[in-house]
Amino acid sequence: MSDLTSVPTRTESRTEKASRPRPRSTKGNRLLPALDRAYYLDPHWLDVDRKAIFERSWLCVTRADALPRPGDFVRTTVGTESVFVVRGRDGEVNAFRNFCRHRGAALCLEPQGSFGKRIRCVYHSWTYGLDGRLVAAPNIHDMPDLVKDDYGLHRLAVEEWLGYVWVNLDADAAPLRDQMLPQLVSRLGNPEIFDRYGIGDLAVGHTITYDVASNWKSVVENFMECYHCTSIHPELTAALPQFRTGYGSISGDSPGATFASSVEGFSLSGKASRPPLPGLLPEDDRLFYGVILRPNAFVILVPDHVAFFRLEPVDVGHTRIVVDWLFDPAEVAKPTFDPSDAVEILDITNKQDFDACERCHLGMRSSAYSGVLVPAEHIITDFYDWYLAAIGQTEEQPAFGAC
Amino acid sequence: MSDLTSVPTRTESRTEKASRPRPRSTKGNRLLPALDRAYYLDPHWLDVDRKAIFERSWLCVTRADALPRPGDFVRTTVGTESVFVVRGRDGEVNAFRNFCRHRGAALCLEPQGSFGKRIRCVYHSWTYGLDGRLVAAPNIHDMPDLVKDDYGLHRLAVEEWLGYVWVNLDADAAPLRDQMLPQLVSRLGNPEIFDRYGIGDLAVGHTITYDVASNWKSVVENFMECYHCTSIHPELTAALPQFRTGYGSISGDSPGATFASSVEGFSLSGKASRPPLPGLLPEDDRLFYGVILRPNAFVILVPDHVAFFRLEPVDVGHTRIVVDWLFDPAEVAKPTFDPSDAVEILDITNKQDFDACERCHLGMRSSAYSGVLVPAEHIITDFYDWYLAAIGQTEEQPAFGAC
Amino acid sequence: MSDLTSVPTRTESRTEKASRPRPRSTKGNRLLPALDRAYYLDPHWLDVDRKAIFERSWLCVTRADALPRPGDFVRTTVGTESVFVVRGRDGEVNAFRNFCRHRGAALCLEPQGSFGKRIRCVYHSWTYGLDGRLVAAPNIHDMPDLVKDDYGLHRLAVEEWLGYVWVNLDADAAPLRDQMLPQLVSRLGNPEIFDRYGIGDLAVGHTITYDVASNWKSVVENFMECYHCTSIHPELTAALPQFRTGYGSISGDSPGATFASSVEGFSLSGKASRPPLPGLLPEDDRLFYGVILRPNAFVILVPDHVAFFRLEPVDVGHTRIVVDWLFDPAEVAKPTFDPSDAVEILDITNKQDFDACERCHLGMRSSAYSGVLVPAEHIITDFYDWYLAAIGQTEEQPAFGAC
Repeated sequence: MSDLTSVPTRTESRTEKASRPRPRSTKGNRLLPALDRAYYLDPHWLDVDRKAIFERSWLCVTRADALPRPGDFVRTTVGTESVFVVRGRDGEVNAFRNFCRHRGAALCLEPQGSFGKRIRCVYHSWTYGLDGRLVAAPNIHDMPDLVKDDYGLHRLAVEEWLGYVWVNLDADAAPLRDQMLPQLVSRLGNPEIFDRYGIGDLAVGHTITYDVASNWKSVVENFMECYHCTSIHPELTAALPQFRTGYGSISGDSPGATFASSVEGFSLSGKASRPPLPGLLPEDDRLFYGVILRPNAFVILVPDHVAFFRLEPVDVGHTRIVVDWLFDPAEVAKPTFDPSDAVEILDITNKQDFDACERCHLGMRSSAYSGVLVPAEHIITDFYDWYLAAIGQTEEQPAFGAC
Repeated sequence: MSDLTSVPTRTESRTEKASRPRPRSTKGNRLLPALDRAYYLDPHWLDVDRKAIFERSWLCVTRADALPRPGDFVRTTVGTESVFVVRGRDGEVNAFRNFCRHRGAALCLEPQGSFGKRIRCVYHSWTYGLDGRLVAAPNIHDMPDLVKDDYGLHRLAVEEWLGYVWVNLDADAAPLRDQMLPQLVSRLGNPEIFDRYGIGDLAVGHTITYDVASNWKSVVENFMECYHCTSIHPELTAALPQFRTGYGSISGDSPGATFASSVEGFSLSGKASRPPLPGLLPEDDRLFYGVILRPNAFVILVPDHVAFFRLEPVDVGHTRIVVDWLFDPAEVAKPTFDPSDAVEILDITNKQDFDACERCHLGMRSSAYSGVLVPAEHIITDFYDWYLAAIGQTEEQPAFGAC
Repeated sequence: MSDLTSVPTRTESRTEKASRPRPRSTKGNRLLPALDRAYYLDPHWLDVDRKAIFERSWLCVTRADALPRPGDFVRTTVGTESVFVVRGRDGEVNAFRNFCRHRGAALCLEPQGSFGKRIRCVYHSWTYGLDGRLVAAPNIHDMPDLVKDDYGLHRLAVEEWLGYVWVNLDADAAPLRDQMLPQLVSRLGNPEIFDRYGIGDLAVGHTITYDVASNWKSVVENFMECYHCTSIHPELTAALPQFRTGYGSISGDSPGATFASSVEGFSLSGKASRPPLPGLLPEDDRLFYGVILRPNAFVILVPDHVAFFRLEPVDVGHTRIVVDWLFDPAEVAKPTFDPSDAVEILDITNKQDFDACERCHLGMRSSAYSGVLVPAEHIITDFYDWYLAAIGQTEEQPAFGAC
């Protein structure tokens, strides 16, 4: 599915580009109410988020190259479900709920490993193919009820895209592109921009995992607005002076933000340590894009690398975020490869952001809290609208612990 | 009560032996539904288990020889109640809830110790005899309402049997034999088999405590079926080849399983390190019995030793299991006594079992889980029937968190 | 407000002194029922306590000298609310809920520190004066809705008294004296006794923080009764033999208890290490007073020092208690100052008391628990009456988890 974004014709893309949302003029310079704190604090609403969003959406769960050989697996969590993805004998990735159909024993405990040729439950040796079909069980010939086709592993929908494995707990889900393409069009206008970075062909140069004491929605909102940039991001705003306006990328004519004139590359030193990625055009030079692929991925695009975020709600007040820094494989292969300049500026920025999210999580606990969005944050109402629709909630205020 | 099993006449015993249950022919080779996962995962149902079973049954709580002298106590938990057993001045063991009748202070905090001649609450010095009667309190002569007989400690029913102390939170409970004898008869046919091991006269040679991240019911079920034996117990099935059928002891004519012909004793090496227990008959030689004494004890009988399990639910997903290896005291007294051959084979087997229970506890968390029992596991339905009757539940599926 | 207790005329005080409660003759020598265990164990009732008592009362939150300069703050918790107190530019202390009015970020994370001249939210730089008024925000001139007066920090009522800062979450609360004076009158008869110790002018010589695994109400009750003194306080009763009666200070004609004849001062050695506090009269010599300032402060008065307790419920079964030992500043300033004799006797006594509270918290967990108050403890019913009225509860027994 590496061509997800290449399907629309250029004409369509251009039309869609024209409709890229701007700060909503109808809301002008009003203060708008922030979402009720219950959605961030009450475990009830995390249950709702998991069931309505994380268990019904395509989620990014692992690098595809974490599964190089048939039988290799990665175990993860989708909503409240333990699942695993496993490379099949045909080279395709499969995804299953992590329990045996007999008595429920978990099939893998380690975060990553190999099943070998078959998936054998250690408890009673019910044995499944890498495609999830039941292939053997002790005494099976004495059990006419045990029809193999009825007892295969519970399958998830799975696709590979951008070098990552994406799963959907709903095995009959519409394709990943139906979820992602509208987001790319809405954000970038022309999704071909996204394609040019060739993310699926890049290699991981560095990875950092962040554990943030905040609800996952605060992390998304933080990524959407730049009103905070001047306050907490001196390094970022030195590289991207447009971010000092408070409006981030959404304030200009282009969906991307332009580097400061003194800056060669998106790095802490401001220097460019490597050439642009192979597929880029001259018009992509010196631009920074931040793209959200709801519900659980963010992508940052700069000329010489890509940063890929995937997040997972751990509990109502904790979110795990894994960030991969992706580079041209030819660069990563060099003995002199050093990603630290690219890593440092974003790692500093991430820590500034996540500290702010944690402060909001603490402050929202006050029964007197009700926040406001300033005009530069109006774009967050797009997220509210999406979120409330996804959980089937009108915009009325929820009661704590209510459904 | 060491003669609990000797009461029925031989005639009665033989009759009962004839009715020992076999794999239920009426269920044939069908797959049967496993119990709903809510009973294993939802804290509500542990509360129910505690109130309906653990607070209304005879439970094994400690070795009797842990209380050698008057005043010696062992503190433990029955359901959700902190209780202690204490050796009285008359040599009998008493059992009480662990709080002072005045303001509720816990009377003992340590797991084991001595009260001395009286049980004195440290807070205000209300003082009780080792029989639980209030005998003194400061200013008591100025308080006509403080009638000593009204303020004795809350008593539990208590009996000694098999060298263990058994208590029942219901002080007026029917005798322990009413709970245990039917189980022995049902399992062994002739309960005299059990008597011949003289368990009450044996001495502890070794003890291991296991903390298992699983509901207590999974541990019981694991002990009941042998469909898993070939998968996870290579050492056990080498000693007891009959267990490779998947049916364990229930598959043969005898209630016991016979050692492999190459095996002298139930040990990791297969060698016999000591003579049979004194009371055994030639017909007991080379046999292995596993006996469940619901709700919280298991016994394994082999010619030269006995293993005694007692279990306690710690929370809905944790169970503590203490296993004593019991030997002829004359053997334990020898300077050369070494129980390791007997300990090792069962300790290995226990760890294999408890790992499997923990995997089921993890896998059952999936909302898609619903297990099945194969014919070799049909005997577990006896446990389901007992359990559902004990908690007053019909076989309909429970809702999570419902009563 | 250092003159809180000096307002009533002497005549009024004497009248009130005459009505100081004695052990209630109408209850005579009866046993009275203790408060239901649910109030101590069920998290529901801690929520009620917090909302009905801790969020509606004046609470002692910190030493005033912890805030020497404008901008200095101390962060604390009132009920479930994170708040901070901060010294203003005018030298007065202000108190606010700890969140920014924009998106809710906590304004301070450290337990103590300095904001400098202004309180700046780190997230988006909304900036408040030390008086809580909004003074600046990025882009504020483009936001006509952002009327500064509407977006000041949420203020608490605050007063300084006895050298401590007291706050009330209700910004419109009646003054602190309305809460405290009746308690002083009720306890001491003549509140001028209290004034003579000049507590507001004393200096801290030592501080100990205790974490007690008990509900906060058990700590208050323990402080009220002395039926336990003979049992657990050998050092205290050696100094104050009157406490051996079980009635503590309430048994004599004076509201204070008199030192043993062999004792010079309230210290572990019995020696007096320093002169009486400056304002005391000869009639105050050799007396010990314990005074409760509900809901969260206790004071112990002895001739040469004062011990000041403030407590905070951490959860339903945990209470944090900070005890300051206060001395004449001239003594504390001496190079030879050594508070250990005064600290030791009370620290030993505190540990004895808190151990007893923890034992009650454990023992009350029994479903069979229902405690009784003996005549020497009847004074605790005053606390029950106050408590049940404060939470709007009749004296009927509560159900666990009910409102």
